[in-house]
Amino acid sequence: MGQYIAPLRDMQFVLHELLNVSDELKQLPKYADIDADIINQVLEEGARFTSEILFPLNHVGDREGCTLDTATHEVTPPTGFKEAYEQYVAAGWPALAADPEYGGQGLPTVVQTVFLEMLNSANQAWTMYPGLSHGAYECLLKHGTDEQKSLYLPKLVSGEWTGTMCLTEAHSGTDLGLLRTRAEPQGDGSYKITGNKIFISAGEHNMSHNIVHLVLARLPDAPAGTHGISLFLVPKFLPKEDGTPGERNPIFCGALEEKMGIHGNATCQMNIDGARGWLIGEPNKGLNAMFVMMNAARLGVGVQSLGLTEVAYQNALIYAKDRLQMRSLSGPKATDKPADPIIVHPDVRRMLLTARAYAEGGRAFSAYVALQIDRELNHPDEKVRQEAADEVALLTPIIKAFLTDNGWISTSEAMQVYGGHGFIAEWGMEQYVRDSRINMIYEGTNTIQSLDLLGRKILQDNGVKLRKLGEKIRSYVEENGLDESLSEFITPLADLAAKVEKLTVEIGMKAMRNPDEVGAAAVPYLRVVGHLIYAYLFTRMAKIALDKRAEDERFYTAKLATARFYFARLLPETAMLIRQARAGSDSLMALDAELF
Amino acid sequence: MGQYIAPLRDMQFVLHELLNVSDELKQLPKYADIDADIINQVLEEGARFTSEILFPLNHVGDREGCTLDTATHEVTPPTGFKEAYEQYVAAGWPALAADPEYGGQGLPTVVQTVFLEMLNSANQAWTMYPGLSHGAYECLLKHGTDEQKSLYLPKLVSGEWTGTMCLTEAHSGTDLGLLRTRAEPQGDGSYKITGNKIFISAGEHNMSHNIVHLVLARLPDAPAGTHGISLFLVPKFLPKEDGTPGERNPIFCGALEEKMGIHGNATCQMNIDGARGWLIGEPNKGLNAMFVMMNAARLGVGVQSLGLTEVAYQNALIYAKDRLQMRSLSGPKATDKPADPIIVHPDVRRMLLTARAYAEGGRAFSAYVALQIDRELNHPDEKVRQEAADEVALLTPIIKAFLTDNGWISTSEAMQVYGGHGFIAEWGMEQYVRDSRINMIYEGTNTIQSLDLLGRKILQDNGVKLRKLGEKIRSYVEENGLDESLSEFITPLADLAAKVEKLTVEIGMKAMRNPDEVGAAAVPYLRVVGHLIYAYLFTRMAKIALDKRAEDERFYTAKLATARFYFARLLPETAMLIRQARAGSDSLMALDAELF
Repeated sequence: MGQYIAPLRDMQFVLHELLNVSDELKQLPKYADIDADIINQVLEEGARFTSEILFPLNHVGDREGCTLDTATHEVTPPTGFKEAYEQYVAAGWPALAADPEYGGQGLPTVVQTVFLEMLNSANQAWTMYPGLSHGAYECLLKHGTDEQKSLYLPKLVSGEWTGTMCLTEAHSGTDLGLLRTRAEPQGDGSYKITGNKIFISAGEHNMSHNIVHLVLARLPDAPAGTHGISLFLVPKFLPKEDGTPGERNPIFCGALEEKMGIHGNATCQMNIDGARGWLIGEPNKGLNAMFVMMNAARLGVGVQSLGLTEVAYQNALIYAKDRLQMRSLSGPKATDKPADPIIVHPDVRRMLLTARAYAEGGRAFSAYVALQIDRELNHPDEKVRQEAADEVALLTPIIKAFLTDNGWISTSEAMQVYGGHGFIAEWGMEQYVRDSRINMIYEGTNTIQSLDLLGRKILQDNGVKLRKLGEKIRSYVEENGLDESLSEFITPLADLAAKVEKLTVEIGMKAMRNPDEVGAAAVPYLRVVGHLIYAYLFTRMAKIALDKRAEDERFYTAKLATARFYFARLLPETAMLIRQARAGSDSLMALDAELF
Repeated sequence: MGQYIAPLRDMQFVLHELLNVSDELKQLPKYADIDADIINQVLEEGARFTSEILFPLNHVGDREGCTLDTATHEVTPPTGFKEAYEQYVAAGWPALAADPEYGGQGLPTVVQTVFLEMLNSANQAWTMYPGLSHGAYECLLKHGTDEQKSLYLPKLVSGEWTGTMCLTEAHSGTDLGLLRTRAEPQGDGSYKITGNKIFISAGEHNMSHNIVHLVLARLPDAPAGTHGISLFLVPKFLPKEDGTPGERNPIFCGALEEKMGIHGNATCQMNIDGARGWLIGEPNKGLNAMFVMMNAARLGVGVQSLGLTEVAYQNALIYAKDRLQMRSLSGPKATDKPADPIIVHPDVRRMLLTARAYAEGGRAFSAYVALQIDRELNHPDEKVRQEAADEVALLTPIIKAFLTDNGWISTSEAMQVYGGHGFIAEWGMEQYVRDSRINMIYEGTNTIQSLDLLGRKILQDNGVKLRKLGEKIRSYVEENGLDESLSEFITPLADLAAKVEKLTVEIGMKAMRNPDEVGAAAVPYLRVVGHLIYAYLFTRMAKIALDKRAEDERFYTAKLATARFYFARLLPETAMLIRQARAGSDSLMALDAELF
């Protein structure tokens, strides 16, 4: 059933060599004491927990799925899930990146994000149970009343209670403006919530003592559309005065969805039948409050696919070294064996390196963004905070869409390495492909991410945020432009940066005449910018590898080879993407819908 | 649960307008009487059968799967599968393209291929039960003794018996030279076969009265490797003298594989425990005999993905017209509704048109190849037969790999149109994605196809076959080069043809120095040639559409729009692929396997 070993060396490379997190964190008073030793210790513990406790439950979770008792509305997750959660809570993992004021351990987002990769490599479906708790915590921390905070935050931080995000309704997915769930004020500060939600991940289960549902609903006098949506806190059990779970609130799982993957997670239809809830933040401003949670969730979804990419790669690599089949085209390599291990074949290496490069690129990118989040939230200088916030806003849709598309590509390539065995459940590879597929859809489809990037974050902003990123890259190019050993990376990086600039202006001009041009260009455009970022990060990583090669010959040689593979075989996708992004809307919009 | 309606209008367009099959068939004495009316009548019957009988069983087949009774070794397919097969046999479908001498209806391969698309759109897992019967028929027709032919062919043709292909063993998949199943001569003309096979599609079931297994095995004195493999006919029940099934032969299903998709088909581990078998063709030339079957199977696998592409497109289209979500960026379109149907959004159209263009391209391409097979087998002029055979040999790996890669892309895009609902089993879309995944693997992985194309069919042949294809395209370009209305298609077509020529020479030169260059270039190279063929076929289709537009405004307008979309949005993939194919083997091979 395969293996998972957390790639600690590469994680440490990203944190300490690429990003110098300890130096960066010293600038943030809250994290000034967090040094490399502490971080490494946490990650080593995390590696043990995820490999030993969570990974062995991944396949059984897929095979068993969850069960709903329709009489009691209770959902039982797969064998071992509850016990693993108890160990997770006992070890204090839910508190990792939470505020010490509420019982948290006060580690930065960047460390949490690296740990999140491990969790998802080991078991995405399981990780989704506590997955939204941290988002609910952040949402309440920012928008909750003092009473809400003191009642709910310690429970979320300890992991005794978990959180969910109840947005989607059958007729209202991408378009939240259409949602119908109603909230009637009860005169005592509470609201009576009624409606039906679908696709609620971890919507019901017995792993935690209570579930804190954050529910979008409409007040009686709310305006139509997205400006009439409010956010409510609806606990599964109404907390008693002493903070323990009391009366059952009528928010029930009506059915579990049968789905392509993440079978171990309970994807619930939730019937909210006059449940008691409390407003979070201001009336009709629910989407604003929810977006705190949504942005964290989008980073999290990208990291889900990063995790799957890594674990799929690791297993495909083992198989490629073990499996004997055919001789190398350039002459037998394992002459003592009846055939060569398939890793001798160039196309098997192409498949492996695709997954490997996307794992390494995704790891660097997600840690980079997570560190910017830490700066956004904690830097003493407001200007720095704002710059970091702008960069996070720009990069969040890319993290979500680029990493999840790449996860789909990578898990499929890794599965292909196995030939026919890849299609067989027993080997575990096809589960990674199925699990990864949802990541391109939920928390805003990848099309929505691309529209958010190109429409909102770039064009509505007159390209200011993007230009800042471009300047960062350009100054790196200038600093290193004379380093001949780097020119194989710097030249294509500079070339792509210039092309992105030109492409953005071109689409912007077209979009002024016809807004459909944004929709026509957005998906390939997002991937172009994703590649620009990876090209930048791989160049920086290659430079470190070149500089430090003698210190750890094996690691840096491999790092350099992966960077070269990325530039030779993955970056050329931009030649296609730029053509597609420039192709315009005519070829999409010309045909009348009824002639399709 | 969706719908399937056979795209008869487009099938007729391909057969009668693009390929002029009736004229072509008139040159083949065997098919001189087959006119458009007969063909259309067959396809209309096929459309009814597949939509009404097979399609309703597709989802239930996926949910139920097959069951093995380990005591009796009997396999029960999903509910309704056996009854549907009885109707299929009663209607004479197995005989469609078989020789009248053995009870066949004598229709050409090109018609059979179009019908095969319908079968696979309706139910790929079901279609795989009779799927290998025709290949077994062709293999026996060409390599069987008279006795074998008279005993087995009528039963295969009537559909009373079905066929399988028993190649793979646990340690021997791509590398058949490693296989271990043994065949000992018994002195009476029969052999005793012993061994274990895996991944045997439709290896055991109760749908037909007997199963004719074609089994690869080694004779006692056989040389090692692929030159020591012989092909045997091993019936499930030994036929009695009167031709009815007699004694049970010990070739049993030991287990059913749990797999990602095609759950309705019984993928069997077969234990062959001293079963009686008879040699087909010459000793140690089993692979030659098997290749007759394999080539038919490779065309068939391409058409499986074509079928899935079409049905996924049809359903995504219905959803995109029904589902209301958000307003068009260029202003509300359905002002009487709470939101616009999602088909107004450019990126939804991109997803739909991707599947549509790959369906239309794949339909034209597979019918084109099938017609060449008819010419290869039946043209009175040997030179024409040889030319057709060469083209079929060149195009078969492309059909297999290009159509199945495109099927994976298309079903995934079609699923994405549904947003979250696409991930839910009930909607049926995720099944198409899962089912399509196997097509990239079996009958030779797509990597193997690409090596067959570039290594064997092109480089070992000094590019002769490819040049002939190039000449066909060049002469079309010259004939139509002055037609300004076509220049939007002709210009990129001519450009790509020139690039393919150059690319081929370049890879050939590099391969002479280092054979790994073939393996490094093959996969992207195959897709480039696939696109060249689609560009050629879409140009020809666009020309017809332009010429005949007034005759059927709606159909030809849509055809033209699809062709334009193909050139604008899918053909640009070649810009990436050519760079990848030229990137060379260094970035793949540089890293020592142990440093991965």
